[in-house]
Amino acid sequence: MVKIGIAGGSGYSGGELIRNLAKHPQAQLCWISSRQFTGQPVASLYPNLRGFVDCRFDSLDSLPDTDLDVLFLALPHGHAMKILPRLPRDLVVIDLSGDFRISDAAVFEQHYGFPQEAPQHQSTFVYGLPEILRDRIRRSSRVANPGCFATATILALHPLYQEGWVKGPVFVDTKTGSSGAGRGPGAKTHHPRRSNSFFPYKPFRHQHVAEISQILDTAAHPLVFQTYSTPLVRGIFASHYMELDRPLRDDEARDLYSSYYADEFFIRWAGKDPDINFVRNGNFVDLGAAHDDQFLIVWSTLDNLQKGAAGQAIQNMNLICGLPETMGLDFPPSHP
Amino acid sequence: MVKIGIAGGSGYSGGELIRNLAKHPQAQLCWISSRQFTGQPVASLYPNLRGFVDCRFDSLDSLPDTDLDVLFLALPHGHAMKILPRLPRDLVVIDLSGDFRISDAAVFEQHYGFPQEAPQHQSTFVYGLPEILRDRIRRSSRVANPGCFATATILALHPLYQEGWVKGPVFVDTKTGSSGAGRGPGAKTHHPRRSNSFFPYKPFRHQHVAEISQILDTAAHPLVFQTYSTPLVRGIFASHYMELDRPLRDDEARDLYSSYYADEFFIRWAGKDPDINFVRNGNFVDLGAAHDDQFLIVWSTLDNLQKGAAGQAIQNMNLICGLPETMGLDFPPSHP
Amino acid sequence: MVKIGIAGGSGYSGGELIRNLAKHPQAQLCWISSRQFTGQPVASLYPNLRGFVDCRFDSLDSLPDTDLDVLFLALPHGHAMKILPRLPRDLVVIDLSGDFRISDAAVFEQHYGFPQEAPQHQSTFVYGLPEILRDRIRRSSRVANPGCFATATILALHPLYQEGWVKGPVFVDTKTGSSGAGRGPGAKTHHPRRSNSFFPYKPFRHQHVAEISQILDTAAHPLVFQTYSTPLVRGIFASHYMELDRPLRDDEARDLYSSYYADEFFIRWAGKDPDINFVRNGNFVDLGAAHDDQFLIVWSTLDNLQKGAAGQAIQNMNLICGLPETMGLDFPPSHP
Amino acid sequence: MVKIGIAGGSGYSGGELIRNLAKHPQAQLCWISSRQFTGQPVASLYPNLRGFVDCRFDSLDSLPDTDLDVLFLALPHGHAMKILPRLPRDLVVIDLSGDFRISDAAVFEQHYGFPQEAPQHQSTFVYGLPEILRDRIRRSSRVANPGCFATATILALHPLYQEGWVKGPVFVDTKTGSSGAGRGPGAKTHHPRRSNSFFPYKPFRHQHVAEISQILDTAAHPLVFQTYSTPLVRGIFASHYMELDRPLRDDEARDLYSSYYADEFFIRWAGKDPDINFVRNGNFVDLGAAHDDQFLIVWSTLDNLQKGAAGQAIQNMNLICGLPETMGLDFPPSHP
Repeated sequence: MVKIGIAGGSGYSGGELIRNLAKHPQAQLCWISSRQFTGQPVASLYPNLRGFVDCRFDSLDSLPDTDLDVLFLALPHGHAMKILPRLPRDLVVIDLSGDFRISDAAVFEQHYGFPQEAPQHQSTFVYGLPEILRDRIRRSSRVANPGCFATATILALHPLYQEGWVKGPVFVDTKTGSSGAGRGPGAKTHHPRRSNSFFPYKPFRHQHVAEISQILDTAAHPLVFQTYSTPLVRGIFASHYMELDRPLRDDEARDLYSSYYADEFFIRWAGKDPDINFVRNGNFVDLGAAHDDQFLIVWSTLDNLQKGAAGQAIQNMNLICGLPETMGLDFPPSHP
Repeated sequence: MVKIGIAGGSGYSGGELIRNLAKHPQAQLCWISSRQFTGQPVASLYPNLRGFVDCRFDSLDSLPDTDLDVLFLALPHGHAMKILPRLPRDLVVIDLSGDFRISDAAVFEQHYGFPQEAPQHQSTFVYGLPEILRDRIRRSSRVANPGCFATATILALHPLYQEGWVKGPVFVDTKTGSSGAGRGPGAKTHHPRRSNSFFPYKPFRHQHVAEISQILDTAAHPLVFQTYSTPLVRGIFASHYMELDRPLRDDEARDLYSSYYADEFFIRWAGKDPDINFVRNGNFVDLGAAHDDQFLIVWSTLDNLQKGAAGQAIQNMNLICGLPETMGLDFPPSHP
Repeated sequence: MVKIGIAGGSGYSGGELIRNLAKHPQAQLCWISSRQFTGQPVASLYPNLRGFVDCRFDSLDSLPDTDLDVLFLALPHGHAMKILPRLPRDLVVIDLSGDFRISDAAVFEQHYGFPQEAPQHQSTFVYGLPEILRDRIRRSSRVANPGCFATATILALHPLYQEGWVKGPVFVDTKTGSSGAGRGPGAKTHHPRRSNSFFPYKPFRHQHVAEISQILDTAAHPLVFQTYSTPLVRGIFASHYMELDRPLRDDEARDLYSSYYADEFFIRWAGKDPDINFVRNGNFVDLGAAHDDQFLIVWSTLDNLQKGAAGQAIQNMNLICGLPETMGLDFPPSHP
Repeated sequence: MVKIGIAGGSGYSGGELIRNLAKHPQAQLCWISSRQFTGQPVASLYPNLRGFVDCRFDSLDSLPDTDLDVLFLALPHGHAMKILPRLPRDLVVIDLSGDFRISDAAVFEQHYGFPQEAPQHQSTFVYGLPEILRDRIRRSSRVANPGCFATATILALHPLYQEGWVKGPVFVDTKTGSSGAGRGPGAKTHHPRRSNSFFPYKPFRHQHVAEISQILDTAAHPLVFQTYSTPLVRGIFASHYMELDRPLRDDEARDLYSSYYADEFFIRWAGKDPDINFVRNGNFVDLGAAHDDQFLIVWSTLDNLQKGAAGQAIQNMNLICGLPETMGLDFPPSHP
């Protein structure tokens, strides 16, 4: 059994880690911290988990006294960099924040608005996108878990950038449910405001662009990246528009993706019918595409709390711990 | 033209007042205050009203310098009682809070948790439910505008209590959309939490019970009153369950209500098919009923921001100002 | 491994059976029929199950040629009674329709509007509510799986009826999500119509009253039963209102339920805060209550496709097959 | 008073015509037809209109016997072309279908899948987009009312195409609520299926592309047009992505649109914050934009039943009848 701790167990990503790990055959949940809810039963914050977790939220201060194999950091951006230097070097660390995703400190500060305070630890982290960097993750003990938008867009575009099909810029129109904003109430996630709405935010400048640009060659093919809020709770749906250097033949896009991701359990081909509704509560990315002469649209959809956060984090843990990669994650999404 | 001021224009009831009054043929919106948004254009908070209101939010402090005929108080509970003593006696005041709804100061404090600080002014207020107290409202200049739940339940039960049909207690199961909680974000109105939810709150103890009991004889027939949150934005749907002193004949309930409310423009009979969907964005109460032998269910549904707040407040203004009661309110609800 | 067939695999209950059984450690899905989709891949109808089910929908005609241990009938009302007489006596049959829930043929016809055509088989069925009739189910091979509303109300009221606390009638106000209406589109489940709606249907006369009355002594304490449509997709929330023969002490209701259901994994106590949001996608019933003197409200909430249909059906299968009762069902509900 | 008839009054566009016209100061609703609901009270289909319309649905056959000034055709595609030849030449006809929007019969058939059967009448129709073709509409008596997507995209792109700023293709990612699919239930608008969903449909080939291409020079700058279904009921949100021939200065986009649409009551500038939530139930198009160097995103959002159908149709009627263009349409959208 893998002894597991979760720092920041009261956020939505933390909650989904707990829910997934409560049923993971090799996971032993030993320690869950929350600053706001220290001392309270975990199940009082997650009534859906009544009967599955008996423990209480610990204080972050009790971390040094806890014997752990793996520590998930599910804290707001800027916290992991403060904690990391005090952690033992042999502890497996999987950070769900953006703190260690960006290798260039200047780029980090530009996108996050504050400096990376532990730059000397940056190189000890691997970017945790298994379908792209599986081998490096396996050999690592520290993972910077990707952002939800970044996961959707990198997996959608990587084969095209690798093959060199793209001509000119790629326009990304990507939509997120409200759970991506976290547990804290705010004006844009107030139910009367968010229900029945659809609106853009952070034009061109979402911080996930930085990590995408580390994987895809956006210097050669610029990415115009626009995020939107939908009135859904869970889910990312990303649409990628581009001109190719030549007209596509029918099935050519499908063949490319099927070939690239042939062995990937968590990537499925949805053709012209991808839908957020069919990936909810599962760790899958459903990809699809349509083309018209030399124009191509590629779609990717995922659950932002699973493949976009907690599910992918556990996938990374499985890889590092030598467990089957799908362990504890091989359940189907729910519908309706 | 009636010169109108709104204190607390940045809440949802205030916003609906502005929206309605912007099209009211005899209303001149002269002054709208907001503590939080003082100095900002009203339309920046209400982008739906762009092109309809050009003014900026005033400070409450500027009230004495403003020439008004009617002042709507759309402030949180507890504020109107502080402002009222400083207002000129000839200013028409329509208070949308609970401050002056309860004639007994002890009952008020028990339900609201703080004392009525201006009890000497209590008797100058009329409870503003036109279908029950029209004549008194017409002769008054100060109105305590009813609560949304109270409006739904009083109009549903008043004919039955008047006729003496009820035997034993009446159980009220009443549901509200999230806009009833106001503009301020909170845990229970956070979109990921409220969406797809259904939950009870304030068991037995909603403060609207106090004002209902002033109109209905709940000593004779106790009201068991339970409120619920639905994942809708707008709307109240109230179900009233009771045993009668005898079996009903078919159509007897319909005949009673049709007779009682025959002349009421804002009360419509919906038979067995009342639906929140058909009263949204209008000032109507749709009533319906079904019976089985001596058991009766009566339903009422309304838009909590219209007949449950701003619409009814304007209906009261029309009465007091000698205008046609339906002026500015005679538009149909929207659907779908 | 238990060899399993599902007749009617294209409805929502059928789909949830497939989803649950795809991960059940002892289940082998051998045969899934659909009249409408015969020959098509099951995963084409359930894109969420891509990667989990490889088979195609069979025709019902192929049933006799299939070697099965357990057959789930997930067909519309009226179909199971036609199929049953042709099934081998040693085949375990779990019927999710209402066909064999009602022991009195006259009562059946009154509620369902057509006669029970296989009344001679009625007595071979046990009503499949494990928390009430576990031992009889274990010894049986044919189960009439309860209705979703019936499950919610029986589990909420059974302790009270057993203890004799209730005085007078019980009023049940019970709400359902749209998936309860099945996969077939209709006017009341058309998205523009159902969204943002709340409306009653089948006043007093929902067919589940018949099965409730077989378990609870509704002759002594009449049940006034009213169903409503909410704009949710999944979930039942039932509110039960009643007067008791005496005032309750604090915690008395909680103690009663905790004692009655002390050993029940799938029944959880939610106090004053039950919420549909915390039972979705799980096989649990969350119960709660509030009281005021001699008045009591009891709440129950469940997922209509899990504990209200497919989950409970598998629970019954586990009991009959001698498997642990929670096998394949011991996963937590999802939230948010 | 203008004597008005509506053929196809039972669809959503027809219903919105009725709702708007019931309050239009110069409209007299004389005749409303429905094949399915002939003889039934209009208000029985539109309970929200109880108290506003007293008439019953007529049969289409009674049209010749009715004295009308204006006839709205709110029928499915393919019906107006059959009716038109039998209509008197001096009757003002406003067709909300696509039948007379496309001047080239071959293009029509390619997009609609059936031939234009009344091509000789095509040239008698003007495309009813007042902000672009006001003068021609004023002089006309027959209007082909634009499609909802087309209205959103033409108004968003027209100034850019006119100015020649665009370089290369324009990618349009456009989302619609479920009411756009009409009143008839279907698999994709079934509430359990549509709720919580987001999915593409008709890749590249939506029929509105044909009418857009008649206004915008898409030969010079191809339009890649992709439609999506959102789980909203009302609203269109269109995002237009493009590269320009040079970097934009700040406010240059705003200045362009403010200048082009300076006198347009129904077009409002929303900057970086357009939202479906602020145009619902009103006849407005809110435009917005953001730029980054030479890349530009332009947004447009409208209510598909108002500016996208019934509202715009009445705007056209006002123009033709010499009434103030905003008459009966100058009410603000609703929110929340």
